[in-house]
Amino acid sequence: MTTTILFAAKPQRWVEYQQPLHEALGRTGLDYRLGLDFPPDEVDYIVYAPNSDLQDFTPYNNAKAVLNLWAGVEAITKNATLKIPLARMVGGGLTEGMVEWVTAHVLRHHLGMDAHIVNPAHEWKPAPPPLASERPVTILGLGQLGLACGEALAYFGFPVRGWSRNPKQVKGIETFHGNDGLLAALKGTQGVVLLLPDTPATHNVINTETLSQVAQGAFLLNPGRGPLIQDTALLQALDSGRLSHATLDTFRQEPLPADHPFWSHPKVTVTPHIASETRAGPASEVIVENIRRGEAGEPFLHLVDRSAGY
Amino acid sequence: MTTTILFAAKPQRWVEYQQPLHEALGRTGLDYRLGLDFPPDEVDYIVYAPNSDLQDFTPYNNAKAVLNLWAGVEAITKNATLKIPLARMVGGGLTEGMVEWVTAHVLRHHLGMDAHIVNPAHEWKPAPPPLASERPVTILGLGQLGLACGEALAYFGFPVRGWSRNPKQVKGIETFHGNDGLLAALKGTQGVVLLLPDTPATHNVINTETLSQVAQGAFLLNPGRGPLIQDTALLQALDSGRLSHATLDTFRQEPLPADHPFWSHPKVTVTPHIASETRAGPASEVIVENIRRGEAGEPFLHLVDRSAGY
Repeated sequence: MTTTILFAAKPQRWVEYQQPLHEALGRTGLDYRLGLDFPPDEVDYIVYAPNSDLQDFTPYNNAKAVLNLWAGVEAITKNATLKIPLARMVGGGLTEGMVEWVTAHVLRHHLGMDAHIVNPAHEWKPAPPPLASERPVTILGLGQLGLACGEALAYFGFPVRGWSRNPKQVKGIETFHGNDGLLAALKGTQGVVLLLPDTPATHNVINTETLSQVAQGAFLLNPGRGPLIQDTALLQALDSGRLSHATLDTFRQEPLPADHPFWSHPKVTVTPHIASETRAGPASEVIVENIRRGEAGEPFLHLVDRSAGY
Repeated sequence: MTTTILFAAKPQRWVEYQQPLHEALGRTGLDYRLGLDFPPDEVDYIVYAPNSDLQDFTPYNNAKAVLNLWAGVEAITKNATLKIPLARMVGGGLTEGMVEWVTAHVLRHHLGMDAHIVNPAHEWKPAPPPLASERPVTILGLGQLGLACGEALAYFGFPVRGWSRNPKQVKGIETFHGNDGLLAALKGTQGVVLLLPDTPATHNVINTETLSQVAQGAFLLNPGRGPLIQDTALLQALDSGRLSHATLDTFRQEPLPADHPFWSHPKVTVTPHIASETRAGPASEVIVENIRRGEAGEPFLHLVDRSAGY
């Protein structure tokens, strides 16, 4: 029997993914069809990106799974027409890319690198920073990405604290949990990294109260999701000096609107949602492994708990 | 018997080091004197920085050792009046600081971070970089600092090549050696990190011939020593596009003279010799451990081979 796989993402993704998906599917030995258009009742799997034109899943409810190309699934968990299993992207270069981005920007702020990159007066002012071991950094979110980033920061000697909704024990990370633990995790920290999912419970986790806990002059990175931050509270903390800098990769609206104050604020760096981008080669392997599992009657990997939203 | 320790470095160092040295000496239980001025024939150890006023060691040739506060010893190995053992600084925060600086700037160039830090047109142009695993980086110099940096880069998945004068086997690093190996180590590499000592044999190791080997658009970091680079060859490689950027922490003359073309070149970042700075606390422990060893009749650590120059 032929396995039918619908690719439902923007056309430029098809250009990127067509070949690596065929290569990975070829290695499974499955008899398959992969394409952009099939009669809905013949479709077994939907390889999906949330910004696809496909928004009504009703005709596809005989399919076996929706396999998301992205780690973030908030745009699709809200879709009431989706009744079949949904798997998110885990791996596919996402973790490696995130570890690179987070470590790079933590080290950038730690070393005060911007003063050398932009130095129009050609000032020679040696001022060695403290060692990483003297600068505590707090990660909010201890999922796969948060854990991988925490491990990398601990490798450099940063004292790493981590916060999650439910208790976790992680080697090399001082862990906190729950609402009470949040303020303790932030108290006196010199760097904050946001890697929480976007759920109603995480909205505005960065607000005036939580920002009041961090050390004067701390930096903040948001490679997680835009709604984690109450934007006005962040701007106030930057203006008051509570935060020295914020480097933001995710926003409530993307692309970030041209008139948003983040663009022109001297203490904000905007990166265009690149901290963790799926790479087609490794991501195709992840997608196809789930198709292989489905066809072999094995459980899918990385299924989304849609009530929790991640 | 009292052990007499002369501190011979710039006065601001005395401010920094006085207390941590006393603390570390106190823990040895030695009967000691530590200060800025003693009759030369009573001095047992000289804690030394090469820019000290003390340049004629002839009166001190009854002392047991000169203990350098810095890793670099080229300024003192050339001093013919020095006849007693010379130890260089190893540890003391040097390695950690160097690993931070090198990893930070490798990741910065790898991720193309400058385009986001300086983005006056507020352009939102997502262009995910390749993963680290797709970008080979070559370290010239496999001493303690080169090895530690190589290990850190390998941690992120960069394919790391390392070159040293004599053959070395290092886990996780593809090693090259000797004159023939130098061009092979650089061939097609996308990043070069200079961590060689300053010796006659390493001068101008970065020249037109060696630069012709690297991949088009490679970056170069010099946290090692200024004379490793032939400055005009570097500028030509930047202008031709062979190199996309050079981030330099060490120079033939420091501070870098105001009229040096590196200051104004758009593809050069100057950092003011901060990549690896000794930190007084941990460095005092290293110095005092050598004093303890000398007084106990044990061999000194980190002795300099003055014929090799490091």
